[in-house]
Amino acid sequence: MSQDHKTVNKVIDSFENKKSLQDYAKQISPLSDAEITQLEEANYSNHPTQEGLSERIDFLEERGISLPYSKGVKQLENLESLKGNIENFIGMAQVPIGLAGPLLVNGTDAKGDYYIPLATTEGALVASYNRGMKACRLSGGITSVCLVEGVQRCPFFKFENIGIVGLFAKWVNGSVKVFEEIVSRTSRFAALKGVRTSIEGNSVILTFEYTTGDASGQNMVTICTDQICRYILENFEHTPTEWYIESNYAGDKKATSLSFMNVRGKKVTTEIVLKKEVIDDVLKTTPENICAYWQSSTLAVIQSGAIGAQGHVANGLTALFISCGQDVACISESSVGLTRMETTADGDLYVSLTLPSLIVGTVGGGTSLPTQQECLKMLDCDGVGKTRRFAEICCAVALAGEISIAAAMSANHFTSAHQNLGRKK
Amino acid sequence: MSQDHKTVNKVIDSFENKKSLQDYAKQISPLSDAEITQLEEANYSNHPTQEGLSERIDFLEERGISLPYSKGVKQLENLESLKGNIENFIGMAQVPIGLAGPLLVNGTDAKGDYYIPLATTEGALVASYNRGMKACRLSGGITSVCLVEGVQRCPFFKFENIGIVGLFAKWVNGSVKVFEEIVSRTSRFAALKGVRTSIEGNSVILTFEYTTGDASGQNMVTICTDQICRYILENFEHTPTEWYIESNYAGDKKATSLSFMNVRGKKVTTEIVLKKEVIDDVLKTTPENICAYWQSSTLAVIQSGAIGAQGHVANGLTALFISCGQDVACISESSVGLTRMETTADGDLYVSLTLPSLIVGTVGGGTSLPTQQECLKMLDCDGVGKTRRFAEICCAVALAGEISIAAAMSANHFTSAHQNLGRKK
Amino acid sequence: MSQDHKTVNKVIDSFENKKSLQDYAKQISPLSDAEITQLEEANYSNHPTQEGLSERIDFLEERGISLPYSKGVKQLENLESLKGNIENFIGMAQVPIGLAGPLLVNGTDAKGDYYIPLATTEGALVASYNRGMKACRLSGGITSVCLVEGVQRCPFFKFENIGIVGLFAKWVNGSVKVFEEIVSRTSRFAALKGVRTSIEGNSVILTFEYTTGDASGQNMVTICTDQICRYILENFEHTPTEWYIESNYAGDKKATSLSFMNVRGKKVTTEIVLKKEVIDDVLKTTPENICAYWQSSTLAVIQSGAIGAQGHVANGLTALFISCGQDVACISESSVGLTRMETTADGDLYVSLTLPSLIVGTVGGGTSLPTQQECLKMLDCDGVGKTRRFAEICCAVALAGEISIAAAMSANHFTSAHQNLGRKK
Amino acid sequence: MSQDHKTVNKVIDSFENKKSLQDYAKQISPLSDAEITQLEEANYSNHPTQEGLSERIDFLEERGISLPYSKGVKQLENLESLKGNIENFIGMAQVPIGLAGPLLVNGTDAKGDYYIPLATTEGALVASYNRGMKACRLSGGITSVCLVEGVQRCPFFKFENIGIVGLFAKWVNGSVKVFEEIVSRTSRFAALKGVRTSIEGNSVILTFEYTTGDASGQNMVTICTDQICRYILENFEHTPTEWYIESNYAGDKKATSLSFMNVRGKKVTTEIVLKKEVIDDVLKTTPENICAYWQSSTLAVIQSGAIGAQGHVANGLTALFISCGQDVACISESSVGLTRMETTADGDLYVSLTLPSLIVGTVGGGTSLPTQQECLKMLDCDGVGKTRRFAEICCAVALAGEISIAAAMSANHFTSAHQNLGRKK
Repeated sequence: MSQDHKTVNKVIDSFENKKSLQDYAKQISPLSDAEITQLEEANYSNHPTQEGLSERIDFLEERGISLPYSKGVKQLENLESLKGNIENFIGMAQVPIGLAGPLLVNGTDAKGDYYIPLATTEGALVASYNRGMKACRLSGGITSVCLVEGVQRCPFFKFENIGIVGLFAKWVNGSVKVFEEIVSRTSRFAALKGVRTSIEGNSVILTFEYTTGDASGQNMVTICTDQICRYILENFEHTPTEWYIESNYAGDKKATSLSFMNVRGKKVTTEIVLKKEVIDDVLKTTPENICAYWQSSTLAVIQSGAIGAQGHVANGLTALFISCGQDVACISESSVGLTRMETTADGDLYVSLTLPSLIVGTVGGGTSLPTQQECLKMLDCDGVGKTRRFAEICCAVALAGEISIAAAMSANHFTSAHQNLGRKK
Repeated sequence: MSQDHKTVNKVIDSFENKKSLQDYAKQISPLSDAEITQLEEANYSNHPTQEGLSERIDFLEERGISLPYSKGVKQLENLESLKGNIENFIGMAQVPIGLAGPLLVNGTDAKGDYYIPLATTEGALVASYNRGMKACRLSGGITSVCLVEGVQRCPFFKFENIGIVGLFAKWVNGSVKVFEEIVSRTSRFAALKGVRTSIEGNSVILTFEYTTGDASGQNMVTICTDQICRYILENFEHTPTEWYIESNYAGDKKATSLSFMNVRGKKVTTEIVLKKEVIDDVLKTTPENICAYWQSSTLAVIQSGAIGAQGHVANGLTALFISCGQDVACISESSVGLTRMETTADGDLYVSLTLPSLIVGTVGGGTSLPTQQECLKMLDCDGVGKTRRFAEICCAVALAGEISIAAAMSANHFTSAHQNLGRKK
Repeated sequence: MSQDHKTVNKVIDSFENKKSLQDYAKQISPLSDAEITQLEEANYSNHPTQEGLSERIDFLEERGISLPYSKGVKQLENLESLKGNIENFIGMAQVPIGLAGPLLVNGTDAKGDYYIPLATTEGALVASYNRGMKACRLSGGITSVCLVEGVQRCPFFKFENIGIVGLFAKWVNGSVKVFEEIVSRTSRFAALKGVRTSIEGNSVILTFEYTTGDASGQNMVTICTDQICRYILENFEHTPTEWYIESNYAGDKKATSLSFMNVRGKKVTTEIVLKKEVIDDVLKTTPENICAYWQSSTLAVIQSGAIGAQGHVANGLTALFISCGQDVACISESSVGLTRMETTADGDLYVSLTLPSLIVGTVGGGTSLPTQQECLKMLDCDGVGKTRRFAEICCAVALAGEISIAAAMSANHFTSAHQNLGRKK
Repeated sequence: MSQDHKTVNKVIDSFENKKSLQDYAKQISPLSDAEITQLEEANYSNHPTQEGLSERIDFLEERGISLPYSKGVKQLENLESLKGNIENFIGMAQVPIGLAGPLLVNGTDAKGDYYIPLATTEGALVASYNRGMKACRLSGGITSVCLVEGVQRCPFFKFENIGIVGLFAKWVNGSVKVFEEIVSRTSRFAALKGVRTSIEGNSVILTFEYTTGDASGQNMVTICTDQICRYILENFEHTPTEWYIESNYAGDKKATSLSFMNVRGKKVTTEIVLKKEVIDDVLKTTPENICAYWQSSTLAVIQSGAIGAQGHVANGLTALFISCGQDVACISESSVGLTRMETTADGDLYVSLTLPSLIVGTVGGGTSLPTQQECLKMLDCDGVGKTRRFAEICCAVALAGEISIAAAMSANHFTSAHQNLGRKK
């Protein structure tokens, strides 16, 4: 995080003009106690009701903030259905959805043509992914396989010394059956897949890895692990000097080497052989050109210190996550992956993409909200028994996007696409 | 990306049941030529018109896909205003917005109380951030300073050998003034801040770093760099054997060490001293407990191989990006940062958060769409001259979230919050 | 790998002065065929004999290169004993050894006082480690535990498509018993601990993890894995389109997140509580100062994008590896670790260091060479059954060094130590 | 750093057998006060004298440790010449040196044929590098260019708040001329190249980057930075609440993304086009096979979470560092790099290797010790004005090693080479 001096000077000037930042707070007139109370009452009617909504809108309007358009947007008839999704509800953000596809997928759960709803405000994104999907369809479709599942919660324990940590690790390993029973009593959907220990001095991180049915599962694994921890605290003979339900090791909401190397959520791998005629016709370039670009791109991304090596997986995945009610913040980890491109003996182009930490669900979270539910239905991915299918579609969508951007870069079409589609006028 | 054998077996079973995946494609009935034509016509009326929208809805309904709720959502009166934001428009995704704040910020551009619109479907998120903001306000507010700006585009050139790369690097360094003029002719908003060279064998990545006014600027820097590259190709005496407008080194849509160490978009740093009374009263824990948790958390996140070290910056930032029309896929890089917590000599808690690669804008992208524009207006961040303010608010929001989660973890309240707020019933 | 233009100019000037680098080769007079033959004959008498040595010395002297000092160094009486250690032997490099200790270790295999031979040319290194060891001894000694062992060899296989990779993974998982038998037939010392699969598109990396007795084991696991691969090629029904004995995934000779998160060689963890009186008396600083430094240091090392977080483990470890006949190039991975420092409730200093990828052996490699064997004997670590002890000592030595440097930095003694001990005059 | 339960059990058993590790210390009989005094006297006669040497040998022998072979090794006539290199000198470690080459280099400073002394105990290493050098010579030699130089020292400062950090950063930027003068007064060889600031909350890391003449320079930059810090402390109007001469950000003795992306020591890039006939004749494989291997290898090393992407640079570099008196612990950072291999239009093989953080020197450190000096002389790299040449040779040696291992892997010769050369019998 280092900068040369010229760039910092602008900031420092602004420091000087104000003499010293620490005087700021005093100059800002605080809310009165009455205002704070009013705010809290309005604010903390956490669960969404029509009455709470009106109070909050009034509160904002008293402060000169009006939301005329938002107020006009059709709201849910029953705001109570937002319970569990939002607190302090004030309206609906509207994000335009574009249609891409058909995306032809040959997966273990996803099979056939899918029409893909992509919610984004970035011009050219839908057109680019659509172009990639077309090339894939004309080449026979994308093989997409959900390989492994696993969501982690990683509590932390510290004891007096390494010796007790050793005894603890042994006790934990001997208690796995009990932990499994605790999980089965606590949740209908979660199942404990395994327990790993990471000893560091007098501390240890336990990694509890679960399958979570068709939910993305972060809440489920928290609740189950909490029950396990209570059992641990009551039954292990030594009391930890510190413990936390999550050590910040699980990779939640962040790109980590750990999740990239193992699995977080779903690990999916996809592949396609793009025919050279299709590349010429649809993508206006050649397998050799795409391959040459991709190899340079891979070395550049290594030089940038990324985790994995891919192009713009986050673009398509974010758009699909928004439209389908996923936890969009999980783009941080879900978009980490590895894209490979190489020419075949026949002069075609082999492309694969592997996403080892795709956090997705088809129940829970935002999946049952109205537009989100409709988008999942478009993909035949609403409800129980559909998550692996959805994961396979996600990875196939991302693969189509990798192909499209690599083709554009290799043919130096990238700029013109954004000039034509990415600007207001 | 390695797994033990048990977990893979499930997948392999599904392989076996189907004999072989490569037979899939043949079994899927392809679209007829007529269908493809119809699709393309519907699809590729890229720009959003009412007529195109109807065609696409019809096309989907013919395939058994209906969007009754989406159709009922109030659409823009003038769909043309979506031009530049979406292709193949089929409707609006609706994401609920919760209100948090006031967030008291002492910045160089952001000053005073802000009410924060967070678009999310994850229960407990708004309440948690709100709690953090309250503790911050009662402790005097968050200092937030936008330190540096810079958006990069990184073209790639390959030549015959290292010798020519050397001559090229020298020629590039001698041409910076010309490049600056090209940029000033090409864009009213972009300014070239600097050029760096990264030589690797017979190839070189050029990093062109720009300021981009109040736009996030990725398109702007592409267009300017394209003009520079045309000049290079016409004027440098040797012809590159390969060249691309972007080498995949810029860190676009991905977490990289490079962006974390330098700047991408805006680099903002924030701090606050949380008073121990406030921590006791609002956060129900102590400075010592939070600090102990955070130190363990930092070592755990190192062990997970993350870039930087933070808690859940992606959560608040994603919600703010969706509501305010930002490029949400940039969460990948924007959520990388460093959070520090330590007790002070007075027994209070010092907390800082630095986000070096915050990609934000207050013009362009999705910022002028209706609900997005209203949310930016809530923050007094709509339009020209507001991006640094918005960046300072973003980082302050994220800091409030770091405080709230650290407090919850340290007091082992994390599970109960998610049990109460994060479930439908 | 980017630099600003000023720094590159110097290089470019040298390019210009010589017109073009590609003309160099022509100007260099090539060896005659006779010379090449002579060289090869001298050179490729690979195994060390007195005659070969003389030929090579003569060959160098004909070219104006003389080694008078080296020739005077006592050589082994029986040069044949160097077989397996060196080709084209021309003499012995001499590196001075300094004595540090006693190092008091409370391990599972290492117990008691050890005198540590450190081979280095860096002034102040031995004195600094010695100071750390003294503080540790006066505080009761270092607990050091070798937790896990495992050396990997990771062959790579590519097949026609993902489907066949799936079948292969299943077949591999079903063949583990056979692989174990192959290993037990191939080596008396190696044992196969486990097999993991990492599928990426139509390719898969297999990780074979072994224990290797008292050898560091890289050759042993190569030979065993080679036998397994032959079995695979002969018995799996599909033929791979590509395969290699090592994919470059095993982490050999490089720092990787993978080895840091799992184990490579030995994983050892150590700890000590340093008494505040000892810190005052020996280290001339306080637990609070050391702890404050270490926390800042940890955040700085995160900002530098390191793997793990430690101070200067490589210093002591390299010196011990040279003196004790280890594979010194493995310092790349062996020196990756995590050091933690924190004050205790009693006002003392807790310090731990964990090294998860310590590649060491007490048989094989350079361990039987004369000075190396004597140094291992000093540590009671020569021969069979001693590797875990040696690993525990290595980690304890490194811990003592971490303490010493942190103390010096916290007291700002670092500069003066190097001024007094690190200069010729 | 996580392991499954089986592997940990062995350790835990050893815990149990001994009841509890914390009882160990008590069971170890401590040294008597007299013994400690004797040790300290023997030990702390830091500088190497014949008398101190004898005392230490006696001390060890009293404890049953004898070094008969080491005692017989020819020692320096004047042990005082070891001053600055070692404390508590007890003898010389002997590491066998093998001869490789000639290595034909076309550099800016290194030109012509070089005979390379490699000190190692790993069988097959010298033969493998030698084979690579032969293939390179027959293809016209390796172009090797030292591009940039810079050694860093990175002090840390913490102030009351961000505001003061801002003022400090501005003051520092305005003081660069003064800092340059301080450096020029402090050292004849060091020159300050630049200063960068990395602000994080109320703390800032300053990066002082130097050129250091022909020394590797770590001590030199410490002493200069210490003088600058004294000036800062005396002249900046605010007093830091904490400061340290080195923040652990400089990348000393560790692999970091920061050094990989910028420069640390010397940044060198090398290339060669290996002719297909030579590859067939010397390396017994084809350009296509090597290229295919290398691409798979690059993706595997990405999956392992390495910094950069190379094969076994550490092997050759370590051997050269030991023989030539370099700071061998710097292998940690020096061996990080990027190797690229691709086929050319003519069917030959292009190979490049870039090492951006090569810490080398031809004066200071161990360079003037007898065998080390002779090895440097073999390379015409002894003394002043030779460091860039030595750096270019280092990188060319490493390139030859990359070629040899890639060829062996691609032809599956790797195992047999180690079976023939890497074993005692």
